[in-house]
Amino acid sequence: MNVSRVEMTDLLPIEELKTLVEPGKVLTDAASLETYGKDWTKHYAPAPSAIVFPKTVEQVQAIVRWANAHKIALVPSGGRTGLSAAAVAANGEVVVSFDYMNQILDFNESNRTVVCQPGVVTGALQQFAEDKGLYYPVDFASAGSSQIGGNIGTNAGGIKVIRYGLTRNWVAGLKVVTGTGELLELNKDLIKNATGYDLRQLFIGAEGTLGFVVEATMRLDRAPRNLTAMVLGTPDLESIMPVLHAFHGKLDLTAFEFFSDKCLDKILGRGDIPAPFESRTPFYALLEFEAVNEDVANTALATFEHCVEQGWVLDGVMSQSEQQLKNLWKLREYISETISHWTPYKNDISVTVSQVPAFLADIDTIVSGSYPDFEVLWYGHIGDGNLHLNILKPDALSKEEFFAKCATVNKWVFETVEKYNGSISAEHGVGMTKRDYLEYSRSPAEIAYMKAVKTVFDPNGIMNPGKIFA
Amino acid sequence: MNVSRVEMTDLLPIEELKTLVEPGKVLTDAASLETYGKDWTKHYAPAPSAIVFPKTVEQVQAIVRWANAHKIALVPSGGRTGLSAAAVAANGEVVVSFDYMNQILDFNESNRTVVCQPGVVTGALQQFAEDKGLYYPVDFASAGSSQIGGNIGTNAGGIKVIRYGLTRNWVAGLKVVTGTGELLELNKDLIKNATGYDLRQLFIGAEGTLGFVVEATMRLDRAPRNLTAMVLGTPDLESIMPVLHAFHGKLDLTAFEFFSDKCLDKILGRGDIPAPFESRTPFYALLEFEAVNEDVANTALATFEHCVEQGWVLDGVMSQSEQQLKNLWKLREYISETISHWTPYKNDISVTVSQVPAFLADIDTIVSGSYPDFEVLWYGHIGDGNLHLNILKPDALSKEEFFAKCATVNKWVFETVEKYNGSISAEHGVGMTKRDYLEYSRSPAEIAYMKAVKTVFDPNGIMNPGKIFA
Repeated sequence: MNVSRVEMTDLLPIEELKTLVEPGKVLTDAASLETYGKDWTKHYAPAPSAIVFPKTVEQVQAIVRWANAHKIALVPSGGRTGLSAAAVAANGEVVVSFDYMNQILDFNESNRTVVCQPGVVTGALQQFAEDKGLYYPVDFASAGSSQIGGNIGTNAGGIKVIRYGLTRNWVAGLKVVTGTGELLELNKDLIKNATGYDLRQLFIGAEGTLGFVVEATMRLDRAPRNLTAMVLGTPDLESIMPVLHAFHGKLDLTAFEFFSDKCLDKILGRGDIPAPFESRTPFYALLEFEAVNEDVANTALATFEHCVEQGWVLDGVMSQSEQQLKNLWKLREYISETISHWTPYKNDISVTVSQVPAFLADIDTIVSGSYPDFEVLWYGHIGDGNLHLNILKPDALSKEEFFAKCATVNKWVFETVEKYNGSISAEHGVGMTKRDYLEYSRSPAEIAYMKAVKTVFDPNGIMNPGKIFA
Repeated sequence: MNVSRVEMTDLLPIEELKTLVEPGKVLTDAASLETYGKDWTKHYAPAPSAIVFPKTVEQVQAIVRWANAHKIALVPSGGRTGLSAAAVAANGEVVVSFDYMNQILDFNESNRTVVCQPGVVTGALQQFAEDKGLYYPVDFASAGSSQIGGNIGTNAGGIKVIRYGLTRNWVAGLKVVTGTGELLELNKDLIKNATGYDLRQLFIGAEGTLGFVVEATMRLDRAPRNLTAMVLGTPDLESIMPVLHAFHGKLDLTAFEFFSDKCLDKILGRGDIPAPFESRTPFYALLEFEAVNEDVANTALATFEHCVEQGWVLDGVMSQSEQQLKNLWKLREYISETISHWTPYKNDISVTVSQVPAFLADIDTIVSGSYPDFEVLWYGHIGDGNLHLNILKPDALSKEEFFAKCATVNKWVFETVEKYNGSISAEHGVGMTKRDYLEYSRSPAEIAYMKAVKTVFDPNGIMNPGKIFA
C-alpha cells in the first residue's frame, strides 16, 4: 500500500501539470528527459522527471504555483549551451523549457528596443536588429543556439564586452515570474527610473534561482561602421598587455581577444580556416575597431608599427573586406567548438586587467609544473581580464581519471584567483560546477545575504535549487 | 524620576557615540543640526539629534552597531544636494556625514579606475580624471558639491546619460556597511564576475536604506575629443523629437537636452550669459557630440540644414571654441539654480523616448488648464525621456498656498505618468517627497519585495527609515 501511495503522489502532480499547458506540452519520454535535462557540461547525468513547455506567461505562473503546491523543483531551460550546469536537471526536477516562447513581440524604432520572449535565440535577435539597420552587440560562440532568457540568467558576456558591456547593459525591462508565481514588470523599459531598488538587476545573472524571465525588452545600438579586425602575433604572453594599452589609448576598440599558438594549431587542423599570416608566433591578439575613415585606419597601422618597433608584435594582418573580417574572427570564435573533441577541462576566470600578466604567469606555472603532459590552451577576452583556461584530455587517460586530476587543478586555480581578488566565474555562471568554490570569490557574509535574498523571492526553494549554492 | 530616566537613556547613547569617533566629531549644536539635517528640498524642518563624522570604515561599522544596540535611526549625508529629501533628518535621527571621508585613495591607469571614499565631491573626481587625461562622465548642475556616495545612493544621472549611462555604469566595485554593521566588498572592481547575485546593483540607488557606501571604485573613460555643442531653436515642442532622431541616426551624441523659451528668459535675465542667437523661439534643443574631424562637423551641419528645411528648426548655432561650448551649456545648466529664486514646485519624471511628445502635451494641458496663472517651465534630458517640470510660485501666493495647490498638481502628474508607464522619479530618487506616490510607478508586489529585501540587509530598520517607503 505504501508503494502504491507513493506512486499516486508521484503520478498525480504530473497529470495535474498536463492540464496547465497545451496538449502534448509535457514530455516524459527517455529521449526528451536526456535532451532537456542537460546543458553543454558533461559532468552530470540528466535525470528530470518531466519537461514542460509553456506558451504564455500565465502558463508559467500556473506551473510555478503548481510546483509550490507540490514542492517540486523547477529548472529553467533555454538553448542549453551553458557551461556551468545551471540548466542541468539531475535530481528529478521538472524542466521548464522556453522553446515555445520564442517570438519577438514588438519593435520600437524610436526607443531602439525589441520586446522578446525568453526563448528568442540570441542570433535571431542579432539578425532582427541587423534587418532594422541596428545592432544587438552581445555576441559569443554559442549565439546561434543560446536563448535570450538564458543570456539574462547568466548575464552573458562574450567578445564585445570591452566596448558594449555585458547583457545587463542591454536589458531595458524585464517581466519575471517569481518563486511564488507572482508576475513582476521591472523597469518598464525606461532609461531613467529612480524609484527604489532596481530589482531587474537582481534577476540578471541569478541563473533562474529567484524566478523565471518571461519577457525581456532588449535595447539595440546603432550599427557599427566598417568593422575592421587585426590579428597580431606576439613573442610571448607578456607582450599582449602593452599591445592592448597602445591600441586602447588610440582607438575605440570593439574587441580585444587573445589565443595561444596551440589554439591556432587546432583551428588550422580543421582545414577550413586560413592562417592569418605565414609565420607562427607563441600568442596572438585579435582586436577590432570601427574604421570610420582613413584617419582611423592610419592610426591603427601606426600603432601596429609602434608595437613592432617595441618588440611586442612580430607579425600582423588587418582585414580589408567583410570576408577577411569573418575569417579572422573564426580563428578565435571556433576554438571552443573545435577543441570540444578533446573533452577539455574548462575554466572561465577573471581578474582586473592590470593583474592579468602576473595572474596568468602564476596559473601557467602551476598547471604546467604539475602536469607537464597536459596540453594547456589559453584564450579569452583579455581586454576585460577574462581568461578561458582549457586543458585537453590526454588520450591515455580515461575521462574519470582526467576529471579527477582536474579537480586538483580547480583548487589551485581558485586559490590563485582568490589571491588576485578575481572571479571564479567570469561569464559562465556558478551553476553546479562552481557552487562548491563560491567562497573563493564571495565572502561568507555575501553568500548568507544572497541566500536570504533567494528566500525572499523563492520561499519554498523550488526555483533551480542546488545552483549557485547548495 | 521617569523624566530623569528618559533623559538618562537619551543622553547615554550620544556619549557612547562620542567614544566611537575622533574627539569633536559628534556635533549637537543648533546650527549644525540645521545645516546637516536637510538637503536641497525645502519642505521638511530638519530635526536630527546629532551629527557624527566618521573618518574610517571601522568607525562607520561601529556607528551602525551602536545604532542597532540603541534602535536609533541613521541618515547618511553627503553633499546634501538631493531633491527628494532622502538625506533629510526630520525625526530625531543621527546624521552620518561623510565630509571627512573625502579622499581619493588609489588610481589604476591600466584599469582606468579610481578608488574613492564616499565623501569625494563629484567635481573633484571629474577634475582628477581630467588631470590624468581621462574622463568621469556623470555630470549635472550640482556636481560642484554633491558627493560620490550620494551619487551612488541615488544612481545619479544628469546631462550625459544618452551616451554614458547613469552612475550605475561607472561603479566597478563597492564597499558597503550593511544595516547590521557588516562590511561587504562587492564585485572587487572586476569587469566580468558571474558569481551569483550582483548585490552591488542593489545598493546603487537604494538611497542609504540598505547600508552605507564606505568606498567606491569608479571607472573612468577616455577623454572626449573636441566636444562641440549646438543650440537649435524650434517652433514648438513637437519638433524637438524629430530633431533628436535626425541627429541620433547620424552622430554619436554625448547629450541631447531641451529647455523652453521661458527658461531662456530667466537665464538671460541674469545678465551674465549671452543669448545663443538673436532670434527667440518657443523651445530649444542643446545637443553635443565629438567633432573628431571635418566629416563629423559637416554631417552635423548637413543635419541641421535638413532640420531647417523640414521646418523643425528655425535658428541655430554651433560652438567653435571651448569658451562657446561652455557658454552654450550655461544656458541649460544654470536653469535650476537661476529659478530657485522663485521657490519652484519641481518634478522629475520620465517615460520612454517615443512617448515623450504625447506625454508632455498631456501634462502641459493639465497644468496650464487648471492654473493658467502659473508659470510653467520645462527643461530636461529629453534624449533619455527625462523631463523636469518646474512651476514658479506666483508672488501673490504664500509658500503654503502654493505648495498646497502643487500637491494637486502632483497627483495629476503622477496619474499621467502611470498612464504612460513612466517613472515618478527619473533621477532624483524617492526619499520622502515621493514615497507616498511610489505605487504610481511600482506595483504593490514590487514594493512588498523591496520591503522584504530591506529587512534582509537592515533587520532593525535603522538605515534611513521613512525614505523610499514609509
